[in-house]
Order: sequence, then structure tokens, then C-alpha cells
Amino acid sequence: MKRFAIAWLGLAAVANGAPPPITAQVLESSQPSDWRRPDPDNTLYLDLPAGRVIIELAPRFAPEHVANIKAMVHDKFFDGLPIGRVQDNYVTQWGDIDEIRKTKAATRKLPDETVIAWNDALPLVKLPDVDGYAPATGWLDGFPVGAEPQPAGQVWLTHCYGTVGVGRGDWPDTGSGSELYAVIGQAPRHLDRNIVLVGRVLRGMELLASLPRGSDALGFYSAAEKPGRPLIRSARLAGELPASERTGIEVLRTDTPLFTRYVEARRNRREPWFVRPAGHIDVCNLSIPVRDIK
Amino acid sequence: MKRFAIAWLGLAAVANGAPPPITAQVLESSQPSDWRRPDPDNTLYLDLPAGRVIIELAPRFAPEHVANIKAMVHDKFFDGLPIGRVQDNYVTQWGDIDEIRKTKAATRKLPDETVIAWNDALPLVKLPDVDGYAPATGWLDGFPVGAEPQPAGQVWLTHCYGTVGVGRGDWPDTGSGSELYAVIGQAPRHLDRNIVLVGRVLRGMELLASLPRGSDALGFYSAAEKPGRPLIRSARLAGELPASERTGIEVLRTDTPLFTRYVEARRNRREPWFVRPAGHIDVCNLSIPVRDIK
Repeated sequence: MKRFAIAWLGLAAVANGAPPPITAQVLESSQPSDWRRPDPDNTLYLDLPAGRVIIELAPRFAPEHVANIKAMVHDKFFDGLPIGRVQDNYVTQWGDIDEIRKTKAATRKLPDETVIAWNDALPLVKLPDVDGYAPATGWLDGFPVGAEPQPAGQVWLTHCYGTVGVGRGDWPDTGSGSELYAVIGQAPRHLDRNIVLVGRVLRGMELLASLPRGSDALGFYSAAEKPGRPLIRSARLAGELPASERTGIEVLRTDTPLFTRYVEARRNRREPWFVRPAGHIDVCNLSIPVRDIK
Repeated sequence: MKRFAIAWLGLAAVANGAPPPITAQVLESSQPSDWRRPDPDNTLYLDLPAGRVIIELAPRFAPEHVANIKAMVHDKFFDGLPIGRVQDNYVTQWGDIDEIRKTKAATRKLPDETVIAWNDALPLVKLPDVDGYAPATGWLDGFPVGAEPQPAGQVWLTHCYGTVGVGRGDWPDTGSGSELYAVIGQAPRHLDRNIVLVGRVLRGMELLASLPRGSDALGFYSAAEKPGRPLIRSARLAGELPASERTGIEVLRTDTPLFTRYVEARRNRREPWFVRPAGHIDVCNLSIPVRDIK
């Protein structure tokens, strides 16, 4: 059994003067204040037959789309709707795929929220590493972002593995949020600033990524496959559920000195298995740890 | 049904003076000479219960590992062995996971083949776009590669979605090829030059990427999950099968003027759906078209 790790290995403590800590050591040294609990009012549970997908919504980036999605969730809009598209190395898409629910929220016209305005006061945590798709990358509110302070003056959520967006037709239709997708493959960064993103999957990506691929164009399930499509049991905001039905998780903060050490431990992997540290990390290659609340 | 395309859309021909062609137009204009048929002696069929995975081996990059894998395949080494590890957003790994087949080939010690020597005469097709993990990237023999002409003087296969590598323990064990993996998520480029790569999946990635994730550490299937592991029906070289059992496919060549136009069409997406072309493409974001031979 050849083991090569994406995560950490059990390792002894580092003595003074030793190389920078590896991932396991950074996380073992974390304090409670290095972790945050996602806002229940922006935490969306997508309960599927196979289990729960937990999505953190990003109201700073797409306030009207997030509000519309929350309104639909409140009205139980998604309950019983299918996962209708699974395109390999691209996206899993769910919701009103067949456009059968013509509610006010589902048909609402929403403004362009692909980007927000750059502002020097934004608490952006910059990643120093070069990126080909954006002049700058980093994290804002715990989400991976791209930024172009000049000349565009823009910040936007990046399409990484697990990022959640709003399906749309041709522009200027921005979508209502009645169909949502999550990235299940190589980060399709060419979609950045082309489509509205609303959040990120914190838990349960494996439930979305391991589904059978649809055989119609773009990964939509064919007529023959439709009867087998997984149906959403319920989509709820954590804040609208009793405490007993919530999943208690914490997410590593991205705005701490510990996070900077974590990024360095991922940029240059010094676990015994590695021969040659990369000296670089892409914003979409850094997974942000999530843990259960004990 | 909100459609956003990874592939091409049906479109009218472009008039003189129009913008550069989009993907569909580039491919429609291709000639037979823009396509190649993979060498049957370096084409590995991994036949699973769900279907066939087609892997192109890369003997230029890892000649001894590829030769050893071919020897094992010739001896039907992989037949009946499981897919034993599926780690979300990382790898699917198959072969002698339980280390039960102590054949000469499976236990052979092989040299370091993580890189090959740089040579100005190599037919490298350079991608002009910046890359954070390598001084240069591009394609060689149709495979995505990284290169560092100076000072290291090295070229290597890159870990992209679908790249196939050789599981190993801690260095200097390079693995024998008795356990192989394919990348099923965001390109783990930090593995480049740390582990031997031997090829790339041309067809059937969805069969490897849609498997249930293993629940043990690093995505290995647990004891309880082991009885349900998918077993390899057979692993064969196309060249060792009668023509009737081969799958006829062609791959877009990467060393043609047409391929350069294809890269540009992917770098700057001009289909009507897009609002803002990215002006950049990562070597791992370019999928190389494969088609059936008619």
C-alpha cells in the first residue's frame, strides 16, 4: 500500500532551530481563536440521499443572489428537485434543471454580481505567489478570491474545487439561483468574472463529485437517466433548524499568523515522503481545514 | 436548464476579418493530419466492471517504469486486483494495494525517472502563459509537461487531471508500477518531480473519478468497504489484443499550427455565453480532444 499524503502524517515535534513546521505541526499548534464557526444564517445544508453537503454562502460578494437563494430555501423551493447535471472534471449542478417551478424568486432578474469593487480597506489576505488568471489572489472572508486593484478595481470569488455558482443562460441573464453548481474538477478559472459565485462547499464535496456523469451534452442526465437522478431531500439554512439538526463544524481562519504558517507548510512540503518542495502554491490548491466541534 | 459549456457549441462559420475562431470552428477546420493514433504498444486498457479506461503510456519520460508495467500487464498481473484508494479531489489508485503479489516485476527496484534531461532539440511545444510551478510548461509527445532548461536542465510530466503515476513509499523507493494512480481533482502540481509519472488517461476518466471515496486515511477503502472494491477485469496493451477488441481513437496532435489555434480559442473564450475572455490558460486546464475513429 503506497501512501502518499494530501493531508498530514503523524510526526514528532520540531526542536528549536529546525526547519519550518509541516502541516501537521502547524495545525497541532493552533489555538481555538485560529478557527471560526460559519454564520448559521449563511450556512446552507443540502441534504441528499447520500448525506449532507454544507455550503457557506458569501453575501459580501453576491448579496442579491444570496438573498434570493435564501428566500427560495425558506420557501423549500429546492426540496425534491434533482441533481441534473454532472460533467466530468467540471461541475455538478442541481435545482430547477427542468424549469418547472416558476415562482417569483426563481424568475427574478438580478443584477451583475460577478465582481465587487476593490477597496484598500478590504481585509484581503494576499497570497504572494504568482497567478496567471488574476493580478492577485488570496482570501477574503475565508473564501479564495482573485483581485485586480488597478485598473479594473475588482475583487471576485475564484472558481476552485468546491466553489458554488449560479447557473445562467447567455448574458445579461445572471441566473436567479434556482440552479446552482459546484466545481468538481480542475479549477475552471476561465469562468471567473463570467458568472456569479455565491459560496463554497465546506463539507460533503465527495457526495457531489462521486455521482455518475450525465451522458447528454454538457453532462446533463439523459431522458433515460432522469428517473435515476438523485433528488434533494431538503435544502435548509442552518439558522432555520433547531440546534439538534445542525452539524457543528469549525473552519480554519484565513486571517491569522497561523494561517500564514499553514500556507508556507503547503507551499513547501517537508514531510519525509517529499523529495523536492514546490516553492509555490496556487490559491485553488490550498484546501482550508474544516473540523468537527467536539 | 442553464447551460454553460466546457466544450463547444454549434456555430456558424466565421467571415473574413472576424475575430479568431472559437473552439468548435478550430476543430471543424482540422484535417486528418491534425490527429494521431496512439501507439498500440503504449496504449493500456484498464477494463473495469463499469467500462474501459484507456491510458497512453509515456516511454520517453519513464522508460524503465513503463517497461516494467508492460511486463506486468503481459503477465496479467493486474487482473483481479482492486481499485483500493479513492481520495476526493486527489487520486484514484489501483493494483496490488494489499501487496499480495510478490512477483519479480512487482518487487523490482527501478531508477529515479521523475525527470528527463533538458535538450534544446526536444520537440517541446511551449505554452507562453506564466506558470507558478515551473519556469516553462507545454506539451511533449502529446503530454503536458513542465520544464526548467536552466539551471536544473529538466523536463517532466505534470500532474494534471488524468495524469497517471506510480505509487511509492518514502524515497528512494520509486515504486515498481504494481500500484498506479490517476489524478481525479485539482492538479496536484506539488507532486511534480517528486514521483514518477508514466502516462495519461485518454478515455474513461469518469469511471475513475465517480467512484465512492474510501473512508480510511488518504482515501483507502476501509476493511468494511474492501469487499465492495471494484476489481480490474483485465489490464491489456492494445497491441496485444486482436483488432476486434481494440477501441479506435484519435487524439489531437499538440505539434501543429491547428493546435496553436486551439490553445488560443481556449485561452480567450469567445463563445456567446462568455462576457470576459480570461487571456490566460494553465497547462492543466487545456483538455486535449479525443475522438472515435469512424
